[in-house]
Amino acid sequence: MNLKTNHTIHSHQCHTSWDNSIAPILTVTPGESVEFDVQEASAGQLSSQSLVGDVADLDFGRINPVNGPIFIDGAKPGDALKVSILAFEPSGWGWTANIPGFGLLADQFPDPALHIWSYEKSASMPAAYGPGGRVPLKPFCGTIGVAPREAGVHSVVPPRQVGGNMDIRDLAAGTELFLPVEVEGALFSVGDTHAAQGDGEICGTAIESPMSVALRFELVHDANIPFPRFTTPGPVTRHLDAKGYDVTAGIGPDLMSAAHDAVSYMIDLLSAQHGLSAMDAYLLCSVCGDLKISEIVDVPNWVVSFYFPRIVFE
Amino acid sequence: MNLKTNHTIHSHQCHTSWDNSIAPILTVTPGESVEFDVQEASAGQLSSQSLVGDVADLDFGRINPVNGPIFIDGAKPGDALKVSILAFEPSGWGWTANIPGFGLLADQFPDPALHIWSYEKSASMPAAYGPGGRVPLKPFCGTIGVAPREAGVHSVVPPRQVGGNMDIRDLAAGTELFLPVEVEGALFSVGDTHAAQGDGEICGTAIESPMSVALRFELVHDANIPFPRFTTPGPVTRHLDAKGYDVTAGIGPDLMSAAHDAVSYMIDLLSAQHGLSAMDAYLLCSVCGDLKISEIVDVPNWVVSFYFPRIVFE
Repeated sequence: MNLKTNHTIHSHQCHTSWDNSIAPILTVTPGESVEFDVQEASAGQLSSQSLVGDVADLDFGRINPVNGPIFIDGAKPGDALKVSILAFEPSGWGWTANIPGFGLLADQFPDPALHIWSYEKSASMPAAYGPGGRVPLKPFCGTIGVAPREAGVHSVVPPRQVGGNMDIRDLAAGTELFLPVEVEGALFSVGDTHAAQGDGEICGTAIESPMSVALRFELVHDANIPFPRFTTPGPVTRHLDAKGYDVTAGIGPDLMSAAHDAVSYMIDLLSAQHGLSAMDAYLLCSVCGDLKISEIVDVPNWVVSFYFPRIVFE
Repeated sequence: MNLKTNHTIHSHQCHTSWDNSIAPILTVTPGESVEFDVQEASAGQLSSQSLVGDVADLDFGRINPVNGPIFIDGAKPGDALKVSILAFEPSGWGWTANIPGFGLLADQFPDPALHIWSYEKSASMPAAYGPGGRVPLKPFCGTIGVAPREAGVHSVVPPRQVGGNMDIRDLAAGTELFLPVEVEGALFSVGDTHAAQGDGEICGTAIESPMSVALRFELVHDANIPFPRFTTPGPVTRHLDAKGYDVTAGIGPDLMSAAHDAVSYMIDLLSAQHGLSAMDAYLLCSVCGDLKISEIVDVPNWVVSFYFPRIVFE
């Protein structure tokens, strides 16, 4: 990486669950920066040569490794850990899969699927999607967080108040993230880098891609924040919004059902408009379409909308 | 309005519930356009001179009038009604209220509140918010839909599969909306114009503002769409995204609770950063902050994020 950091963490220096008894691998002083060499979420079980059959063979005990933990000197419960996301150095390849039983439409898509991506390493050009379309990229950290207060082993899959697998696609370069510290030293870890993802990550995977990421750590003492928050350095959708959006709505008394309906509707629309298979449309929606809550107050029905950027096909 | 339309509907030509037995006030041929002179959602009960006490006196039997119904010649159940949103002529004033019992944080904000807005009529300049901030505007139709198949009187408050009070802030000029037709002639109505609103409309009201809107109607026969969908002519957030966003996350197993947590967190943040009262921050968030579903797949916890555009205070 061109950017010079104070420390480097290699890809093997990782763990696969949150547990505040895991010994830190590095102690940093506030103000210092660290480069992390992050594996993709399968931890090497999938490669650029993988085929769909490999999805069925995934060992879930190994997935979503995170690099760390990092002990931040002076961090105490009640502080906020400020993480400045400095830069990414993407690898140029990634994968998107439908993993049976996982994803918003798991009921409609029971079979495994795998798409391997190849992209230009600067991530400044859209990546071609074999079945059709070109997807603008924006690398970010899918999993980023600190150790929970509660003792014991906690799955790395769900995010929590301390962060973790939040899959917020705007945790990209230039963003400043604040995480609530629950244990001494914070015990920070990061992993699950993505080359692109839409809001929702609807099929359950993004463009899962190994890359290096540089982060700087600072502390805000006694901030007592309830959840993560962040500040973006500028607009968050300009890489994909130039041609506008096709939007489908789901309407009803349950936000989850409305989201399900909106996405299912978009898959039908993209399939009809562009001749994609339903599965190909589903994976594509996951990497570039956005779930928004249009209204959450007009009792008893809410509107969840799914925004698909038209630039992908224009 | 500078734009010439085939027909004009005046503000008093309205109704306050969806009911497919209401006689149409106009029949249009596909391809024709109509200008609607839309009242704000209180139907004249609030004015630019109103005070907070007037909120408590609102007669809910009169709220959210919609202009119509318009019979579209040849529309049949199973068709889609294509509505091209051509232009708005805003009035230059509007209101935002906290109505007790209504809104995402109704539990935290039991008291009425009212803010009266004055804005430049082209809506091209941000509107000053008295307690602090300047809100970029984008006029749109809060309520737009067709009559439901089911006989009888249906409240105008909730949206349905046929549209209605969807409060989708991107139903702005240039957007093409497709609505599922359930009865002969479609029986289209529109109302509840807003000068600005964030995704979610979290306090329950937007910048409620009377304005004229010009629409053109066409039919797509046998489209058989399950819900409304639309296409935007270009980017949807460029009026407010230039300075980036402050974002708060809510994380947990229920989307509604996560949305509640994210918004509540943002209100605390804005109050601390800008010296706003909690109520002022709540109303401000409703007119310019966006609720997004960041991830909906990392079982069992989802992430709902609330995006507040920093340009409001910069």
